[in-house]
Amino acid sequence: MRVRTENGDRDIRAVWFEDGRVVMIDQRRLPHELVFVSFDDYRDVAEAIRNMTTRGAPSIGATAAYAMCLAALKGEDLETAARDIKAARPTANDLFYAVDRMAESLAEGADPVEAADAYAQSMVDRCIAIGEYGAPLIKDGFRVMTHCNAGALATVDVGTALAPIRKAWADGRRFFVYASETRPRLQGMQLTAWELNQEGIDHAIIPDGASGHFIRQGVDMIIVGADRIAANGDFANKIGTFEKAVLAKEFGVPFYVAAPISTFDFDTATGEDIVIENRSEEEVTVVAGNRIAPVGSPALNPAFDMTPARYVTGFITEKGILRPSEIEKVRG
Amino acid sequence: MRVRTENGDRDIRAVWFEDGRVVMIDQRRLPHELVFVSFDDYRDVAEAIRNMTTRGAPSIGATAAYAMCLAALKGEDLETAARDIKAARPTANDLFYAVDRMAESLAEGADPVEAADAYAQSMVDRCIAIGEYGAPLIKDGFRVMTHCNAGALATVDVGTALAPIRKAWADGRRFFVYASETRPRLQGMQLTAWELNQEGIDHAIIPDGASGHFIRQGVDMIIVGADRIAANGDFANKIGTFEKAVLAKEFGVPFYVAAPISTFDFDTATGEDIVIENRSEEEVTVVAGNRIAPVGSPALNPAFDMTPARYVTGFITEKGILRPSEIEKVRG
Repeated sequence: MRVRTENGDRDIRAVWFEDGRVVMIDQRRLPHELVFVSFDDYRDVAEAIRNMTTRGAPSIGATAAYAMCLAALKGEDLETAARDIKAARPTANDLFYAVDRMAESLAEGADPVEAADAYAQSMVDRCIAIGEYGAPLIKDGFRVMTHCNAGALATVDVGTALAPIRKAWADGRRFFVYASETRPRLQGMQLTAWELNQEGIDHAIIPDGASGHFIRQGVDMIIVGADRIAANGDFANKIGTFEKAVLAKEFGVPFYVAAPISTFDFDTATGEDIVIENRSEEEVTVVAGNRIAPVGSPALNPAFDMTPARYVTGFITEKGILRPSEIEKVRG
Repeated sequence: MRVRTENGDRDIRAVWFEDGRVVMIDQRRLPHELVFVSFDDYRDVAEAIRNMTTRGAPSIGATAAYAMCLAALKGEDLETAARDIKAARPTANDLFYAVDRMAESLAEGADPVEAADAYAQSMVDRCIAIGEYGAPLIKDGFRVMTHCNAGALATVDVGTALAPIRKAWADGRRFFVYASETRPRLQGMQLTAWELNQEGIDHAIIPDGASGHFIRQGVDMIIVGADRIAANGDFANKIGTFEKAVLAKEFGVPFYVAAPISTFDFDTATGEDIVIENRSEEEVTVVAGNRIAPVGSPALNPAFDMTPARYVTGFITEKGILRPSEIEKVRG
C-alpha cells in the first residue's frame, strides 16, 4: 500500500518478516501515527492478534504464519504454538487456515521464513486477483459503499473490498466511496478512510446509522470483506455488515463480498454455526480514553454479525466472481 | 422524570420557567453531570436550541415557547423574536408550532408565563396519554428497541418513545430495552441509557450497527420518536431510524412511532418535502474532544433521515394509536 511520509511516498505492507522479527503496523495508533512494532516471540505475536495491533482476517492469517515461523526458528513445540496462536481470536477462519498450512509446510521440512513469506505473498497475490476481477464492476461516477476495513491493512497489502476500488481508481475511473465509520472500534473512519486518503481516492466518512439514508438516496454498489464464509454462502463480517445487506436488498443495490478462498470454511455448513465473538463493553462505552456512557448502563458488543447468503450478489474471489450457489466450485 | 441525586430522588423537567428565567438541563453534559443553565434573553434561548443544550422536538417546542415568553416580558418585537427563534433549527416541526401558538396567545392578550407553562404542560399531558395508549403494547419478557432519545429530556417530561416504556414498567411488567447509541452525538448512549438507568429499567447500549444483529436474533417491537411527520405519514427522525424501520419490515417486527399531534405537519405533503439538517463534520470526526478521523478525510453528517409511512405499524399519539392511513383523522 502507498503511504505518505515526510520522505515522500513509500510502499509498505501491514506485516512482514525482517532480521528475525515479525514487524507490523500498530493499527491501533492509526490514523494519528504510523508506528511499527516488532516481536521475536510467537506468544507476543499471538497477543498482538488478540489485542488487535493487527486485524483483518488475511492479515491475521499472515501474522499467524509468521508467529509459527518464529516458533519453528526458536525450536518451540509446534503443537503448543499452533494451539496458542489459534486461541488468539475465535471468528476469522484465516487464523486457523494459516496455522494449519504452516504446520503442514514445516512438517514437510520447509524453511520457516520462506514458508511464511510465501503464505503472506499468496494473500497479496489473491488480493491483486480480487482487484482484477472486481474492478470492472465499478463504473465512472459510481457511489460505492464499504464498511469496516477490508483494505491493505487487513490483508497484508492491496485489500479485499478495497482491491477493486484501488484497481478501478488506478485504471482511471473516478467514483466516490462512502466509508461507514464502524463503531465501536471505528476501523472505517480510522483505517479505511486513512487508506483512501493516502491513495487520493474520493471518499467521505459516514456514521453507520446514515448508511440507510445514503442507500435510499442512491448507492450503486456495496462491497465488504468477510471474516468467515460458510459452505452455504452465509458469512460473518464486522458488526453492521448485515444491516447494509438488508438495505441493499430493499433498494436493489448489488451487494458484493470480496474475500480470498481461504476465508471460505467448508467445514461450517451455515452461518448459524459461526461463532460470533463478543468483545468487552468498554469498546463501546469508552472512546478516545473517555467513558461516554452513564455509570451503571451495560453495553453489548458483538464484534461480528452474520449475513445469510440470500443477500449476497456475488463473492469476488481470486478465482472469479461466484454467486452463492457456485461456491462449491472452489471447494479445495 | 425521576433523577437520582445526592439528596435522594427528585422529580424534574427538561425545561421550565422560574424567577424570570428559562431554566434547562444542559443535555450536552449528561450523563456525566446533571447541570442546569438559565437565560433571561430570548436570543440566548434560541442559541441553546441551536447548540443543542436542549434538544428533542417537544422540548425544543417548549423551550421556544419560553423564549417567546421572555421576548414578551421584555417588550421585544415579537415578529423579530419569532423569526429568530424559528431559525435555530430547521427540522423539528414543534419549533414552528410552538412559536406560532405563543404568538397567537400573546396576540390574544394571554399572560406570557401562563401561556408558555400551559404549552409545556400540554406537552407533558400528551406524553402521559402516549404512555397510556402505548404501554399495553409492551408485554412481559419483551425485547424492545429504541433509538436516539425520545425520553423525558426530549419532551419536557415523560417522553414519547419512552412514555410507553416508563408506563409499562411502572405497571409492573418486566422487559429489556436495547438503546442504540445513536452516532454521532450519542444521545442513545448518553441520554436514553441515562434515563433508563435513573428509572431502573433493564437495558443495554448497543452500537447502531448492531441493531440488525439483535433484530435478527429477536426483537419484539421497535419504538422511536419523530421530529416531523408529513401528512402522508412519512416521518423524519434521528439518523439511523430508517435502517431500523427497514430491518423491522424484513423481520416482521412491529415498528411504532410515538409522537404528539404537534409533530404532524399537515402542510408537508410527503417526507420528500422535509428539510434534512446537515450538521458539522466535527460531530462525526471529533469524539470527547479528540479528533479520531484521518486529517484530510471529510465526513457527511445528516442529522435526520426520512422513513416512508409504509414501514410504520402505528403512530402512538395522545389521541390513540393511528395507522398511517388514519392520520387525516387528527388533522387539526
